[in-house]
Amino acid sequence: MPRISKRGLEMSESPIRKLAPLAAAAKSRGVKVYHLNIGQPDLPTPQCGLDALKKIDRKVLEYSPSQGYLSYREKLCSYYDSFGINLTPDEIIITTGGSEAVLFAFMACLNPGDEVIVPEPAYANYMSFAITAGAKVRTIATSIENGFALPKVEEFEALINERTRALLICNPNNPTGTLYSREELDQICELVKKYDLYLISDEVYREYVYADVPYISAMTLPGLEQNTILIDSVSKRYSECGIRIGALITKNREVHDTVMKFCQARLSPPLVGQIIAEASLDAPESYGREVYNEYVERRNCLIEGLNRIPGVFSPMPMGAFYTVAKLPVENAEDFCKWCLSDFNYEGETVMMAPASGFYATPGAGKNQVRIAYVLKKEDLQRALVVLEKALAVYPGKTME
Amino acid sequence: MPRISKRGLEMSESPIRKLAPLAAAAKSRGVKVYHLNIGQPDLPTPQCGLDALKKIDRKVLEYSPSQGYLSYREKLCSYYDSFGINLTPDEIIITTGGSEAVLFAFMACLNPGDEVIVPEPAYANYMSFAITAGAKVRTIATSIENGFALPKVEEFEALINERTRALLICNPNNPTGTLYSREELDQICELVKKYDLYLISDEVYREYVYADVPYISAMTLPGLEQNTILIDSVSKRYSECGIRIGALITKNREVHDTVMKFCQARLSPPLVGQIIAEASLDAPESYGREVYNEYVERRNCLIEGLNRIPGVFSPMPMGAFYTVAKLPVENAEDFCKWCLSDFNYEGETVMMAPASGFYATPGAGKNQVRIAYVLKKEDLQRALVVLEKALAVYPGKTME
Repeated sequence: MPRISKRGLEMSESPIRKLAPLAAAAKSRGVKVYHLNIGQPDLPTPQCGLDALKKIDRKVLEYSPSQGYLSYREKLCSYYDSFGINLTPDEIIITTGGSEAVLFAFMACLNPGDEVIVPEPAYANYMSFAITAGAKVRTIATSIENGFALPKVEEFEALINERTRALLICNPNNPTGTLYSREELDQICELVKKYDLYLISDEVYREYVYADVPYISAMTLPGLEQNTILIDSVSKRYSECGIRIGALITKNREVHDTVMKFCQARLSPPLVGQIIAEASLDAPESYGREVYNEYVERRNCLIEGLNRIPGVFSPMPMGAFYTVAKLPVENAEDFCKWCLSDFNYEGETVMMAPASGFYATPGAGKNQVRIAYVLKKEDLQRALVVLEKALAVYPGKTME
Repeated sequence: MPRISKRGLEMSESPIRKLAPLAAAAKSRGVKVYHLNIGQPDLPTPQCGLDALKKIDRKVLEYSPSQGYLSYREKLCSYYDSFGINLTPDEIIITTGGSEAVLFAFMACLNPGDEVIVPEPAYANYMSFAITAGAKVRTIATSIENGFALPKVEEFEALINERTRALLICNPNNPTGTLYSREELDQICELVKKYDLYLISDEVYREYVYADVPYISAMTLPGLEQNTILIDSVSKRYSECGIRIGALITKNREVHDTVMKFCQARLSPPLVGQIIAEASLDAPESYGREVYNEYVERRNCLIEGLNRIPGVFSPMPMGAFYTVAKLPVENAEDFCKWCLSDFNYEGETVMMAPASGFYATPGAGKNQVRIAYVLKKEDLQRALVVLEKALAVYPGKTME
């Protein structure tokens, strides 16, 4: 039997999806599971997007252009303009989800063995895409105690060597909910300039910024026009995870043209998804406001509730719809499994994502979980009750 | 400015798409262009697929499972069964087009530097996916004179070394329209067994087999259950290129589980596309028959017409909807460009794909073009007239 590739062996299974069989078993025992583990928004897709889907009247569902429809890219320019990001349509490449945008950015910019620095905890699939590209992720630790703020420049510099090619940030951050400040981004800007790195910035949660501080796109950092690659996706913005529409945006023509070669190889991004995404740009202001207000309320409810549970600590996330919380347990993965396998409170339990899956450093984040607030408030409140009961009786609980 | 990756530089632009600006210029001068260059079927998508699209009634366009919907995979089992391919749903992974299936097969099975043998001419994007995976394509020549049949086993063996890991075939073949015989596949089978290779078989054109010889799937070759990876796509079968739905099929669990890790990283294949593809499996028998009959008629019209033009030779393709034809010109790429830039006959011209883009061997196929018969018969007939007129006056014509 022929052997599997090294990168295939190196790839890890999804840290979230590997608990799925335990959740399925719990459900088959009649236990209700509150899913705090997933990033699938429960809020509705904009009606104008759903209407556009129904209105598709084509005889042939044909290829679209490899870079995506011009009409969509033109309309996106106005969207980005409202965030102070000035673009022309030929600086935008439509991708199959934000996932493909990250992969193509790595493929175009990194050689096998090249290094990309990523603050951790980080979105786990960055590691997978780096393995796919043969590149190496060097993580830089951030800590829950100071809200996962970016470390000082010197700590970044300690990681930089002749193989360092890129810095990847996610802002607002998945999984921590952190929003980077002007000061943090100015530091990043200096660093990227000094070492002539690529700055890959994943900003798919820009609509969900709850603090009074502004969202600052990497695309607006002065002097980085040739360094910056913006990763985007409509998945979270419009509850359209399933249509697989993202974007890779750069003013660097060489990067653009190289990414286009990878795009041509895969022919085209999804046709129907583009039609829905384009129409969704017409969602009324009220859609965005209602979604936003809903997340704010959930966030407040969740974070207050978490911090009221003895031994639990969560910083107040300033963006996205996640938090990373510290639990009074030795090993959060064991606890998450136990919640699904050995526990229920009045027939209910919770499913959370062990945060260890978001750290590349062995042992880091061992007592942390990522919690997504994509459940309605009443369910979040009930889940908090169940979590508190679980922690109260969990045998692996640590002393305060 | 940071530099581009080596593989990014190595990737070639689409051999088809690079003539696009010339075609656009011709059209802007008012010249009608017959597109013989593209693989986008003009025939309608099945009505049941289009209806399923309109009937989608969801509030949230959510992620689908990374391996694709179970209901779709179950239904596909019956489809494959009708071709003598016996599968269970967990042997099928739904991918984002056949493109992703090829890429993931390479990623899971090949290390950087590993070699995959591919008969040439070949679908150009195989080369792109190999570059993406850091693998090396070793091409084995086939010749137009004997209808692009597979070479003898000894010629394959001459290419095999310690880095050889896989053999990739496309059957029925794009770009040549060749269908491999029982004898050819038996030889492949022995070879794959002897050297314990992966056999990656792209069979997306199985519906379009025009010869009286049967289509033999690599999945039915005895003793190769652990070696074979089937690549599939609904793009050509149902004129659904835009929905980006393909499949990677294997009975090798290790390969399956490894591919799934890449699938989890990109989260999910397109949701809407899966719904359309699943519904399209219910297309009436008459749909397939009409499409088939249409292609047969076009094929006969095109190939007869080509071989009537002085100096032109095309084998009779036994499958798919392409042929590779030899033209009486020094350099077919120059001729294709000239047709778009310097020629028209009564305000019309033709666009063809230079076959050199389908060869990795420098200089091979220099006087050949790939022609797709995805235009209606009257347009094909007219295109043949235009082509004949173009060849009659082309300054770079070779003597017979």
